Order: sequence, then structure tokens, then C-alpha cells
Amino acid sequence: MSNENDIKKKLSDNAIKVDKFIDSILTPKRPEILYNASKYLISAGGKRLRPFLTLKSCEAVGGDPDLAIPFAGALEILHNFTLVHDDILDNDPIRRGNPSVHIKFGVPLAICAGDLLFAKVFEAMTIYSPKKINNKQIRKSIEIASKATIEICEGQVLDVTFADTEKVSEEDYIFMVSGKTGALFRACAEIGGTIGKGKKSQIKALGKFAYNAGIAFQIVDDILGLTADEKTLGKPTGSDIREGKKTIIIIHAMSKISKKDLRIIRTALGNHRASKSDIENSIELIKNLGSIEYASKRADKYISTAKKQLKKLPDSESKKDLNELIDYFTKRNY
Amino acid sequence: MSNENDIKKKLSDNAIKVDKFIDSILTPKRPEILYNASKYLISAGGKRLRPFLTLKSCEAVGGDPDLAIPFAGALEILHNFTLVHDDILDNDPIRRGNPSVHIKFGVPLAICAGDLLFAKVFEAMTIYSPKKINNKQIRKSIEIASKATIEICEGQVLDVTFADTEKVSEEDYIFMVSGKTGALFRACAEIGGTIGKGKKSQIKALGKFAYNAGIAFQIVDDILGLTADEKTLGKPTGSDIREGKKTIIIIHAMSKISKKDLRIIRTALGNHRASKSDIENSIELIKNLGSIEYASKRADKYISTAKKQLKKLPDSESKKDLNELIDYFTKRNY
Repeated sequence: MSNENDIKKKLSDNAIKVDKFIDSILTPKRPEILYNASKYLISAGGKRLRPFLTLKSCEAVGGDPDLAIPFAGALEILHNFTLVHDDILDNDPIRRGNPSVHIKFGVPLAICAGDLLFAKVFEAMTIYSPKKINNKQIRKSIEIASKATIEICEGQVLDVTFADTEKVSEEDYIFMVSGKTGALFRACAEIGGTIGKGKKSQIKALGKFAYNAGIAFQIVDDILGLTADEKTLGKPTGSDIREGKKTIIIIHAMSKISKKDLRIIRTALGNHRASKSDIENSIELIKNLGSIEYASKRADKYISTAKKQLKKLPDSESKKDLNELIDYFTKRNY
Repeated sequence: MSNENDIKKKLSDNAIKVDKFIDSILTPKRPEILYNASKYLISAGGKRLRPFLTLKSCEAVGGDPDLAIPFAGALEILHNFTLVHDDILDNDPIRRGNPSVHIKFGVPLAICAGDLLFAKVFEAMTIYSPKKINNKQIRKSIEIASKATIEICEGQVLDVTFADTEKVSEEDYIFMVSGKTGALFRACAEIGGTIGKGKKSQIKALGKFAYNAGIAFQIVDDILGLTADEKTLGKPTGSDIREGKKTIIIIHAMSKISKKDLRIIRTALGNHRASKSDIENSIELIKNLGSIEYASKRADKYISTAKKQLKKLPDSESKKDLNELIDYFTKRNY
């Protein structure tokens, strides 16, 4: 079996366990429509990368990953809560190839569904925590999860405000992405390490690994948004351009572009009515400016920083899995 | 000093301490606009009933209320988070006499501000918890807070769906109100009792006290919505009728009304364009049907159930305060 097939199999094996837990804590109660809206996006799929990070981080410090399942599930629920609300903010009609929760159920229910999911995160980490996990571990995990959520909120607001900001630097972008993606990745690894009773230095290394991996993941996501096809993305190629998102690619392109070409890109950037050919022309321009290649190199930098951190952990099968995970999710179809 | 002045003074003394804590954990960070939006409603006022419940419950079981301040603050933050999102759901333009957060800052920021506040609840209960509070107490408090939030979400969705439901029973109303108001009141008292290291039976009694008090509080709020003036309410009198809210008063009136009068009330109920005189005619009709009186009696019932629970606690100044609090907030200007 190739490494890629191997990691895919492991991801899906873990996903089954985590999904079983998630299902059990989202059993519909009154009003049923709220629970349907809350489960809708989670049921639509997703690779369950974040729970995988938690379970493997737990194992990498010598812990029993089965004890981390409620925490891994809680973190996947937390991720989905942020997606549900983020799609309202961005007015994104499609997620994972299906209508977004607010399109399917309306904005009020989508807001409540997100809130319910967020509350379930802390229910999962307290009421559903296995007996073998002590109260200090629980407290620490909640501390980590709440800090990460604060950073996610900050990142989401920056992302929205950047769309209306002319001058966004690469530093701004990294700060925003650190919040939107890096913070939760870090939390997943740190909580895994905490549940596995890892040493402080190990938990810190796992957190830094995941944080850098998260930034790389987001950069790769931004690249795919311009290069992958609609079917793979589950939404139209180049949506980021239409929405005026200041991705690292756009920021690079805008710094290199000639005055003449600036006019071309401006017909598409942030223009929700831009035609398919406007978008295609912009993507072509961006490619020619070397911006995709630039972003790809930046992603590689974060990947190598991430991998260096993993070296601080003893060799194990799960450490190998974490290394393979980062290769898998940063080398998606481009 | 009269009892009412006495309790008002105590409420405001406690509010100062709690607000100082809230202020300290909402220190603006980047992006500042997010923190401004998050603090906006909390800064606009409010009686801080819920933190008072927490502090007095802590004291009533023999605990040091100062140790409960971060928890009391967290619960006021939780309350404000639910208000920010609830105003989006209900499309309420005014809260505490000011524009609602989503009117002032837009829906996307209001969603994020609510989410940030919610995350801050758990940060307050972990990172800001005093050293003398042990991890078991913290875990229990988080368990209680997350369960209450789940009930609030359920109550909010029911409240929204009831507006479009023809037949809503008094039982449905009580179920909804239990979630929307009772659950958080109960959580405030139970967490206070937990931080004060009360006996299980005492914490349970405090919870039941607050739960029933919360339901009474909501019924009184519904009465005031039809009887108090715009200045006192901070919004137009009879807004509930315009929004088609199925309050206990409306439910009672609809069960007693004649076919002829039904036409009058239907011109106003759920009609956002209803004129001031349409609303006034409906309120007059509702009064004549004895529905206000009926609701008032139902509130009294919950108040007496609440007070009975308090008898299970040893006599103390704080127990007296809790008794006076319920008198104060259920006898507001009608």
C-alpha cells in the first residue's frame, strides 16, 4: 500500500470512531429542526483531519488514543461550528458540495445551530470525558479550546475586513490565517498531548507542529481555490477572487503586477458579477506572475518548520502518521 | 432604607465588581472592531441579575463570594452572547434603549462578537479562576454552563418557530421559557453553590429556586412588554404583538377570545406594519379578557415555588437577599 493510501485508510478508520461519538452527543431533542441543522454539515463529510491530529498527538506521547475520542469529536464539532457561522459571514452558498447551513435552514437557525455545536464542545469535554481523564486534564483542554476559539473569531473578522481593505500585507495574511486555521490545529495537537499525559515540552512541540501545518494547509487551500476544478473544490474555481479575498497569492500578485494588468485583475477581484472568463484571465495572470509558485514555496517553508518540531518527539508509528498526514494534506492535486 | 432601595444598592455594588472583571477580560486586541462590538451591549447596562444570583448563591452556602466573581462575570457574558445572537434571530433593532449589535456593527460582526463572548465564558472559568477553586469545581461549573447554553439554544429556536405556529399551548410556552430564561438562572445559582462548596442538596435547591424565579421573571417581562411605557422598556410597547410572539398572555387571550374580537387581534398579531392604534386596541382587548391578570397569577405561582426551595437553606443575609431579589424583579412597575 502506498503512503497516501495508508494515511487515507487511517484517516477513515479514525473518522468512523469519532463520527460515532459525535452522532451520540447530537441525538435529536426538541426542537428537532435545530438538531437537524446542527448535524447537517457534519454529516456532509469532511476528512476529519483535526480529530486525527488529536488522536495521533495523544498516541505520540504514549497515551491511549481511545481516551481522546470525546476530545477529538469535540474539536471536530468546534471546527464545524466555525464553518457554519463563517459561511454566513462570507455569504458562501456552498460547502462540501452542498448548500450551506444558512441556505438550507435560513440564517436564524444556522446561527443557533452553530451556537449549539459550540456548547456541545464543552459538554463533550466534561460530561462525556472518560473516567480515566482527570479534572486537571479537562480544565487544560477547555482552556486550550477556548483560547483557540477566540483566535478563530479574531481571524474570521480580519478575513472579512481584509476584503474591503486595499493594502493587506503578507504579514497581515499570516496573522489572519494563524487565527483562522493555525490556532485550531494547534489546539487539536495540544489537547491530544494533554489527554495522553505528554511532557510540557512534547505538548509544546506538537502544538508548534500543528500550528505551522495549519498555516501550510490554508495556503495550499488558497492555491487549490485557483487551480483545482469545481468538482474537487465543491464550489466554483476562483471564488476567492470574486469575493475579493486577500490570499497570499493575491497579495503577491498585486505587489508584482504592472499598471496595465492591474486593470484586468480589478475587473474580477471583489466583483461578485465577474464572468467566468474574467476569472480565468485573472488566474492566468496570477500564474504568469509566479504567485502560485511563490505561495507554494511559502507553504513548503511552514511544512519544514512543522516537521522539525516533530523531531523532538520519540520515534513511533503515530509520529510517522503525523508526518505523513502533513504530506498528504499539503500535496493535494497540484 | 426600604427593601427595594436596599436590594438596588446591593445589585449595583455587586455589578461594579463583576463589571471590573468583565472589562479586564475583554481588553481589546486585534481586530479592535471585534472587541468593540463584543463590549458594546455589556457596556450599555443591564441589572446584572444573573451574576448577583451567582454571588449570593455562593454566599448562601457559606462560600466567599469574591471567589465567584470570575464565574459571575462569565455568566453575564454568556447572557450577553445569547442576547446579541437573539436580536439577530428576532430582527430586534433595539436593546437596552440602544441599537442592537447587528444594527450598529452589521450581522457578520454581531455573529462573531457573540461567538467571542461565548468563548470568553470558558476562558473566564479556566484561566481566570482563582487559585482556591479546584479543578473539580471548574469542571462542574463548565458542565452546568454548557448544558444551560444548549437549553437556551433550544428555547430560542422554539421561540422563533412559535411565531409561525398557529397553535401553541401554555405548556409549550413554559417549555420554551424554561430554556430561554430558566436554564441560565438555574446555572447561575448552581455554579454559585458549586464555587461556594455547598452540599448537593443545597445546590439543587438553589437551582430549583432560580429556575422557577427565571420563569416568573420571563412572564413578568412579557406582561411589562404590554403594560410598561416605551421609555421603561427601551423599545415600543406591544412589540411582542407585532412580532407575533406567543407569550403566555397571548396564548390565554387566544383561548378566550370571541370570533368577532379575533378579527381585531389578528390585524395586529404578527403584523409588522400594524399601526399604534391597532396595537393599543389589541392590548385593551387582552386586558379585558383577563389575560394580564391570569399571567400575573401564573408568575406568582412560580415565585412561591421558588421561595419554597430557599427554605431548604440555612437562614442568612444572602438568603434574605435572594428572597428580596425575586420580589424586586417580579414586581416591576405594574
